[in-house]
Amino acid sequence: MPNGSHGQNAGAGALLAILRDGRARTRAELAELTGLSRSTVSQRLDGLIAQHWVVAGEGSISSGGRPAAVFAFNEGARVVLAADLGATHARLAVVDLGLTVLAERAMELPVDRGPERTLERVVTAFRELLAADGPDPAHVCGVGVGLPGPVEHASGRPVNPPLMPGWDGFPVPEWLGERLAVPPAGPEAGPEAGPEVARVPVDRVLVDNDVNMMALGEHWAAGPAVDHLIFIKMGTGIGCGIITGGRLHRGAQGAAGDVGHVRVPASDAPCRCGNSGCLEAVAGGASMAAVLREAGIEARGGRDVVALMRAGDLRATRLVRQAGREVGTVMASIVNFFNPSVIVIGGDIAEAGEQVLAGVRETIYSRSLPLATQHLAIRASELRDRAGVVGAALMVVEDVLAPDAIDRAVT
Amino acid sequence: MPNGSHGQNAGAGALLAILRDGRARTRAELAELTGLSRSTVSQRLDGLIAQHWVVAGEGSISSGGRPAAVFAFNEGARVVLAADLGATHARLAVVDLGLTVLAERAMELPVDRGPERTLERVVTAFRELLAADGPDPAHVCGVGVGLPGPVEHASGRPVNPPLMPGWDGFPVPEWLGERLAVPPAGPEAGPEAGPEVARVPVDRVLVDNDVNMMALGEHWAAGPAVDHLIFIKMGTGIGCGIITGGRLHRGAQGAAGDVGHVRVPASDAPCRCGNSGCLEAVAGGASMAAVLREAGIEARGGRDVVALMRAGDLRATRLVRQAGREVGTVMASIVNFFNPSVIVIGGDIAEAGEQVLAGVRETIYSRSLPLATQHLAIRASELRDRAGVVGAALMVVEDVLAPDAIDRAVT
Repeated sequence: MPNGSHGQNAGAGALLAILRDGRARTRAELAELTGLSRSTVSQRLDGLIAQHWVVAGEGSISSGGRPAAVFAFNEGARVVLAADLGATHARLAVVDLGLTVLAERAMELPVDRGPERTLERVVTAFRELLAADGPDPAHVCGVGVGLPGPVEHASGRPVNPPLMPGWDGFPVPEWLGERLAVPPAGPEAGPEAGPEVARVPVDRVLVDNDVNMMALGEHWAAGPAVDHLIFIKMGTGIGCGIITGGRLHRGAQGAAGDVGHVRVPASDAPCRCGNSGCLEAVAGGASMAAVLREAGIEARGGRDVVALMRAGDLRATRLVRQAGREVGTVMASIVNFFNPSVIVIGGDIAEAGEQVLAGVRETIYSRSLPLATQHLAIRASELRDRAGVVGAALMVVEDVLAPDAIDRAVT
Repeated sequence: MPNGSHGQNAGAGALLAILRDGRARTRAELAELTGLSRSTVSQRLDGLIAQHWVVAGEGSISSGGRPAAVFAFNEGARVVLAADLGATHARLAVVDLGLTVLAERAMELPVDRGPERTLERVVTAFRELLAADGPDPAHVCGVGVGLPGPVEHASGRPVNPPLMPGWDGFPVPEWLGERLAVPPAGPEAGPEAGPEVARVPVDRVLVDNDVNMMALGEHWAAGPAVDHLIFIKMGTGIGCGIITGGRLHRGAQGAAGDVGHVRVPASDAPCRCGNSGCLEAVAGGASMAAVLREAGIEARGGRDVVALMRAGDLRATRLVRQAGREVGTVMASIVNFFNPSVIVIGGDIAEAGEQVLAGVRETIYSRSLPLATQHLAIRASELRDRAGVVGAALMVVEDVLAPDAIDRAVT
């Protein structure tokens, strides 16, 4: 057992944890909050300042009349590269330690072409973002990736992901870490890329399921007062991310939140999983588009269905509303079971706004217990398209700024 | 912010936390595990020994050839009074810090007579248990109570409990604490009670929902390797207790686990809640007994249904098996959502054993996703009738032995 788990003075990491609330503080305040002596506080602050985690400034006039030095968390000390890969689209971002998105890019990127072709494009796009927007590659402290399938969190490897042929067991963290660290080969190595983005050495690549990342992002946006949150992604497929006691609940096999294949009553619609009557088969974007195509209306996926609804197509509107009701029916049992304080609806179908929310609310409020719904908020995603990259960045930031990790970095 | 949350040396509480694994250890081992000096370890051990939390003995021969003193957690240092109140029956126990039941009593105790009449009998029974079985009342370090309804955990007060008229908002912890602390009045004060059990001063009375307590108890019995456990009580009503990451998930209003009124497909059986088609209305003990009574068979509740099944009554057997299937149908969605590693079935109906388990397993395995069920264990309660009192005692023990609390007690 390492010493840290039982016996430890408040180290540099604990000081930084206090400063992360965004308030600048004096040495005296920090000594009071930690129980450390002022000289120890000063010594630890020196270590944090030397590595740019903390910046010093002049604060308000202290009681003695002289301005006291104040210390603040430096959100710009490092950046994180975050990628949110969906089945067909990806969003990439450079994010600072305060979760501000400094640069981002959305692009078509179908994951069914296999891990190497997909991740090669991610690496190139990360290099371009760094070159174009200027953060020093040496300031990259980690990479966070969300993937559209089950991921073994500890290893960051996909586990039998149904939409991702060729990805099963692929070592995403190792592959990305190695590829980012070496200079790009071939035409990419030309003068356009610039030598300053040639190498991005990172020792921390964390990978998880995309819906878990979105739940983390939305929970951060909702604020720390929200303890129990369920994020529902309504896109091509349907899945949940679950926050309990402020932390992600991944489940025994990391499969928690996989509600897309729950059977809904009174449906025998065939599902791509091989069964019938699954929630996705009636409320997934792909299924709704297929229903419209059968009626002779052109629709490739959920985004088209929502676009048709916005254009006033009644069949699309009815489908979206009914999709909300079907999701609400499944969630009604889960609300009784889990008693969340907030349910956030995101994904392409959530862009339908009130049409889909009304269906979800209607069934949850009529079928769940009053005690579980009296303070329950059911709302659309705040971060929308950015929920995944913010969550992926947060996963990395929490790892980088964990007090133990900072204690080791600042000695 | 108190000092303890950021800056603290390993205190007496941290030493005790190490020793709670049941292994006796030397000063050298404890110094190694905590990073403290041997002299500091000795000083803290002295404080723990003075208050009987730790006992010293002679261990094996050390490398130097002389026997080294070893120190062990003293499970008998204190006792907890634990009560598990069901709708009509109660179980009371005196439990030590290692969760060994030292004395116990089961009795008929309908909670619908109101809090004072019910709790007066609990107080009397606790006094009798202490008098008969000898633990010194001064060693009682707390009281843990499970109640058959929703409880606001922070205050220990029932919140609109449907089966408990007169209990809404009743200050159970204060009432019990005061009543136990004063000598009994009236005939109880006679020579039978004995002066040594007249007063039981406790400053720690913790109250929670009975199913949560059972889940805590079963999780303790399952061992710390089980991270995500769902306990299902199948009794008069049906409810769940939920463990995630080793901790109880109570939900936003403390209402988590309330699955008894989830609607099941293809049923319109009237439920006592006023709706129809609820899980309890088809799989609850009271409903099954009512079905048998309609067929002219005498059955007052779930226990009678199980007794009839054991006696070979086919209608009772079919009802129990079907109840398992109905519970399994509701749990199938929840397994996809929550991905537990273990589901434990307890309560009166669980005494039907394989007949009910087979129904639960049949539907969960056919309707949940393979990834979520491949390592899922679905089994009957290990602690059976004792799950509630063990869990209620554990809730108190964790509070008593929390490192901060021990640090304050041992100075």
